[in-house]
Amino acid sequence: MSTTRLDKLAKTLQASGLDALALNVGPSLTYLTGLHFHLSERPVVVVFTVDQPPVVILPKLELLKLEGLPFEVSAFPYEENPSAWGDVFRAAARSLGLDGKRIGMEPRQMRLLEFQYIRAGTPEADFPDASDVVSRLRVRKDAEEVTAMRKAVQIAQAALEATIPLIKIGMTEMDVAGELVIQLLRHGSQSAMPFSPIVSGGPNSANPHASPSDRKLQPGDLLVVDWGAAVNGYVSDLTRTFAIGDVEAEFHKIHKIVQEANAAGRAAARPGVPCADVDIAARTVIEKAGYGQYFTHRTGHGIGIEGHEDPYMRGDNMQLLEPGMAFTVEPGIYLPGRNGVRIEDNVVISEDGLDCLSDMRREIRVVG
Amino acid sequence: MSTTRLDKLAKTLQASGLDALALNVGPSLTYLTGLHFHLSERPVVVVFTVDQPPVVILPKLELLKLEGLPFEVSAFPYEENPSAWGDVFRAAARSLGLDGKRIGMEPRQMRLLEFQYIRAGTPEADFPDASDVVSRLRVRKDAEEVTAMRKAVQIAQAALEATIPLIKIGMTEMDVAGELVIQLLRHGSQSAMPFSPIVSGGPNSANPHASPSDRKLQPGDLLVVDWGAAVNGYVSDLTRTFAIGDVEAEFHKIHKIVQEANAAGRAAARPGVPCADVDIAARTVIEKAGYGQYFTHRTGHGIGIEGHEDPYMRGDNMQLLEPGMAFTVEPGIYLPGRNGVRIEDNVVISEDGLDCLSDMRREIRVVG
Repeated sequence: MSTTRLDKLAKTLQASGLDALALNVGPSLTYLTGLHFHLSERPVVVVFTVDQPPVVILPKLELLKLEGLPFEVSAFPYEENPSAWGDVFRAAARSLGLDGKRIGMEPRQMRLLEFQYIRAGTPEADFPDASDVVSRLRVRKDAEEVTAMRKAVQIAQAALEATIPLIKIGMTEMDVAGELVIQLLRHGSQSAMPFSPIVSGGPNSANPHASPSDRKLQPGDLLVVDWGAAVNGYVSDLTRTFAIGDVEAEFHKIHKIVQEANAAGRAAARPGVPCADVDIAARTVIEKAGYGQYFTHRTGHGIGIEGHEDPYMRGDNMQLLEPGMAFTVEPGIYLPGRNGVRIEDNVVISEDGLDCLSDMRREIRVVG
Repeated sequence: MSTTRLDKLAKTLQASGLDALALNVGPSLTYLTGLHFHLSERPVVVVFTVDQPPVVILPKLELLKLEGLPFEVSAFPYEENPSAWGDVFRAAARSLGLDGKRIGMEPRQMRLLEFQYIRAGTPEADFPDASDVVSRLRVRKDAEEVTAMRKAVQIAQAALEATIPLIKIGMTEMDVAGELVIQLLRHGSQSAMPFSPIVSGGPNSANPHASPSDRKLQPGDLLVVDWGAAVNGYVSDLTRTFAIGDVEAEFHKIHKIVQEANAAGRAAARPGVPCADVDIAARTVIEKAGYGQYFTHRTGHGIGIEGHEDPYMRGDNMQLLEPGMAFTVEPGIYLPGRNGVRIEDNVVISEDGLDCLSDMRREIRVVG
């Protein structure tokens, strides 16, 4: 796979007027090379050019990872003492004749740590934002990628189904999150997961990005569970909302509205339609029901080897959907200090419509 | 806790000639404020100054996280469309009068994404590396921090002991890693763990930073398990090496050498001694035994809210150990293409010596 991806990258760099792409440790590096590193205090940078083998600057103790790659690389290993790292980066830049060139970067991933080493070796270079260049390579998933994502959805769904009978009034959000992670692993998720599950009850559920707390589940709570699994480096990212015992009539009402908004967002998604339409379709349902001000985020985000990536379902995003694009549809209503609802599915644009990877029941279910 | 830490930060900034410290999402931000965010495509930056409340630039949908903080902050929330984010960052910088000032950064954590927004709002500012300033605040752990780390070590040890009987010949490295993560959660680790366990057998164990693969455990393998737990945001990071069935005499020999090196490194650590001495003590044992060239990394790294932080046990690091400093002692011998050994403990410098948090058996144990 990786040589094809590198060939495509070379063509894309040329077409974009870039001489090189410099990546640090992260999903794009893994996508292009198959290499896995931890992001750490030891900088690892790979520089891709149009016509030379990739240059890899890395700690000597990571050299073994380069063995068995299906393409040639030029390695610049460094020793443990940081005072010598600058020289290694300069030698690597010189070997590619990079100074004065246009070296693309991903600002979302590149840290000042690596950037300062690269810039010191190429004081006359430009460093344009190449996020779009890399995104264009990654945004249309191939069949193998969709298969991994479908599996990641199935594992996530089975894991939550196995967790539901264990949820009891009086358990903490953290208790539930821990059980869910155990079930994710039992059902076959990779142990490196996309994110820790969000399990948030009552007032915490009105915070879209809550972390599980030691608050205990109480009758009358809504319970938002936002979770995912990972398969072959591809992730799922789902949300379902439950009722703990009896809940107020308004909470049933907003759950139903969000369910309709989720369906409307999915129904709007097909090839050739702008991302904005998915957001508008979902948002309109919630606005018409009078809860527009409580839907405080975009309707979805792309998904693949990252939990959040292109394309983004925002009302101002005129990017057109294409077959292979994968993303979440996740409208919500959050009533501050009271309760919140979110329902999130993972979908892939097909040749003529939409392939919804997730099919777990969306109606409100009473647990506890 | 956080107000004390902010007071200390203000004093440290002043003493260091810095006007401000700008942090993005990461461990130092959590340490200083107690705030947790996911590092994502939405930039979150907190700017600390000597005499004004911290300024927080963040997505509007994260605003709830600022409620209940034990100190005043000045919030600059932004909407979902990135085209408006620059204005919000500029307004935040103006409110603090930051332009032309000295704004410290952590290059290991700060991404170009946030840096470019900050710089656009403060075109005349300087951005010195403030890693050491922040490190000085974090590097001496208080009693509460040590208690959390001790608990994280105990959970990790109990989890591996519970996993050992499950390890069988023919299981893959990934199988073992999955079981170990389940046991970590069962024993009380937070679900947001410091890192995915390294489980590497046979030739993979000769790669200090291997990721668990689908290689099956075979008689004759050494099996390196490098794992940790998290408690209240503090982590443990341990390694033990096992034998799968009968292994060559040389592997028993290198295991014994590494065990002696580990003991020598721990014996060398006490207040007033340079970090280098810990490395030299461990390395000398391995060099004298003729395996120096196969010990390819430093002897240890600091540990706390990050898996890797100051201080680093490198042969050239003359930083003096002080009470409260916590770090790993983890010598290893890696025979390329054959097998590797590492034995890693977590220690804290006490008033007059060393407090070794980990006490799991270090002798080679046969499993499978």
